[in-house]
Formats: sequence, C-alpha cells, structure tokens
Amino acid sequence: MPYRDAMNARVRSEERRAEIVRAALEVIAERGYRGASLAAVAERVGLTQQGLMHHFPTKDALLVAVLQERDQWDAVPGSRWRTDLLAALVEYNAMRPGIVQTFSALLGESVTEGHPARTFFSERYTRVRASMAEMLRAEYGDRLPNGLTPERTAPLLVAVMDGLQYQWLLDPSSVDMPGAFRDFLLLLGELPD
Amino acid sequence: MPYRDAMNARVRSEERRAEIVRAALEVIAERGYRGASLAAVAERVGLTQQGLMHHFPTKDALLVAVLQERDQWDAVPGSRWRTDLLAALVEYNAMRPGIVQTFSALLGESVTEGHPARTFFSERYTRVRASMAEMLRAEYGDRLPNGLTPERTAPLLVAVMDGLQYQWLLDPSSVDMPGAFRDFLLLLGELPD
Repeated sequence: MPYRDAMNARVRSEERRAEIVRAALEVIAERGYRGASLAAVAERVGLTQQGLMHHFPTKDALLVAVLQERDQWDAVPGSRWRTDLLAALVEYNAMRPGIVQTFSALLGESVTEGHPARTFFSERYTRVRASMAEMLRAEYGDRLPNGLTPERTAPLLVAVMDGLQYQWLLDPSSVDMPGAFRDFLLLLGELPD
Repeated sequence: MPYRDAMNARVRSEERRAEIVRAALEVIAERGYRGASLAAVAERVGLTQQGLMHHFPTKDALLVAVLQERDQWDAVPGSRWRTDLLAALVEYNAMRPGIVQTFSALLGESVTEGHPARTFFSERYTRVRASMAEMLRAEYGDRLPNGLTPERTAPLLVAVMDGLQYQWLLDPSSVDMPGAFRDFLLLLGELPD
C-alpha cells in the first residue's frame, strides 16, 4: 500500500475507534457495562460484531478505551486546579447528562464483585483526592477557614460532586447541581464573588 | 388444614421470604441487579427457580421487596433525626459493607434507562432531602452558622453520605468514612464534643 493510502487507512481506523468509543459511552449510559453488549455497540456504528472486534477484540478492551476517554476530561494537573474551575466543570457537566450518566453507572457497578472497572476507579480516587488536596493547599494553606486540613477536606469535595450527580440524574428539575456545588464551596470558606 | 398447621405454614412462608430477600441483597451486591438472576438467588437458599417463583413471581417483584427492606433501615421520621444520629448511622454502615454495596450498586444502576429502581430512588431522594432539611431546621433554625438555609444544605448532606460510600467501598483502608462524615458536620458549624 502506498504511503498516503496507509496514512489514510490509519486515520480512518482512528476515526472509527473514536466513533466506537462514543457509541460505547452511550450504550453504557443506557444499560450499564454488564448490560451492554458488543453487538449493541456494533449496531449503533453500523458494523458487524466481527467488524467491531477488529478494533476492540473484547468487551473489556472497549471498557479500557472508554475509561481512558473519561480520564482525559479531568486530566488537569493538581497544581492547576482551582475551586472556581471545578465549579465551571460542574456547570459543564450539567450540560452533558449522557456523559455524567455513563460515569455514574460505571462507578455504581465498579463496587460489585470482580468488576473490570474497579481498579480504575480505586486508583482514580486516590489520584483525585491527592489532586484536590493539593489544590486546596494552594488556595488555603495548611488549614481551611473552618479548621480542616486539605487532606481531610478532599474526600468530602469529591463525595459531594459524585453524590450530587446521582441526585441530579434522578431528578434534574428539582436538583440544581451547579448551585449546590457552589454552596459547598461556600461551606469551605470560599467567599462569594 | 387445622388452624395451627396453617399458622405454621404462614410463618414458614414468611421466614422463607425473608431468607430469599437476604440472598437477593447478597447477589445484587455481587453482581448488580441487571447481573443478578432468580436462578442464582434460588440456588443460594436451596430452592429451585420454580420454588422461588412461588414466593416472588418475577425478578422485579423481588427487587420491590429488596427496596422495601432497604427503606426500613432509614425509616426514621424527619423530626426525629439528629446530626449525631446520622453520624452513628454512618459508623454503623461502616460495619456492614455488604448492605452498603447493595445500595450503592442499585443507586448506580438506577440512573440507566428504564431501570425498575429509578422511581424508588427518585422518590426516596425527594423524601430524604425534605427530612434532612427538617432536621437541620430543628437544630439550627432558618440559617446554618455558615449562612445556608436548611433546604440548600440538605442535598449536600445526602451527597456526602452517598459519595463517601463509593470511595470507602473502593478503598476501605484509605477512606475513613465515619471520620470524613464527622468532618462534614464540622463544616456545617457543628462544634466537636
């Protein structure tokens, strides 16, 4: 195959992979990971299951790609985070319920026995808590106005973000997710602008 | 059937139902609801699937019984809740990871499309937020020390409890769930004893 054709084929293959990952995100949002099938993902992108398995040989391989995609969304170094950016992230999340739904469904499943996403989530939370503690230290020093250390505050910050997502997905018209998250920042001693 | 035999049969049937619900709680903790099968529950209590279906004709009927069982755990009227009792509930939860796992797995699944537990969770959160707001008003009046109203604080309180459960289930040795929850109560303006 001439060089240009090979490059085109590679670009097409990468586009196809990205399309499959997007379809997998949707199917997981709708049915969870255990309820998702490669056949359903294949159908959504107009491939046979055999054709899909050329790109992702197993369901777990596809899950890995989905989680890597997920991870890019919050791939901001700890030192770069600021609480106002987090508030903006929550605003942004409120505009993309599908993605929040995929994440929340996977998080829920990850606590069941032997789930393939368990290690991902467990490592992710260790990293995210450290990153949030680093952010809080940069903004507040060794103690927040309320007396808690950044390390003791970080798990609460993460818990509020996750917990609000469930309440919001279940009842979007009653739960103002971005507003509630800003309220939490007030509790930390953040002064309103 | 003589009266006493009929009574005995009824008691046995209720005991058997309770045993099936306990087995279902375990199977859901391990596999989620979508991953659970009536056959797996039946096997755990030494029944045939046909025998189990005598008590619960469908998987959804069994889920309803599981959720009713779940609901009894926090069936405390709003006016009776106190933040120190909530802290004690979180301590208690930390001693029963299986139950927390069942709840967290079901909550995660409930946000997927057409899940049979969705209405349960959506109504439960409306009720629990109202109940927590009532508790906060009884303890703090119309404003908490930080200036938030009870109604704006309630979703945060609930979110922290749920979110901490996921972090704790994923990494019990790194996350002190009861300690973190007490830290959150400090943020509300609760003074340490």
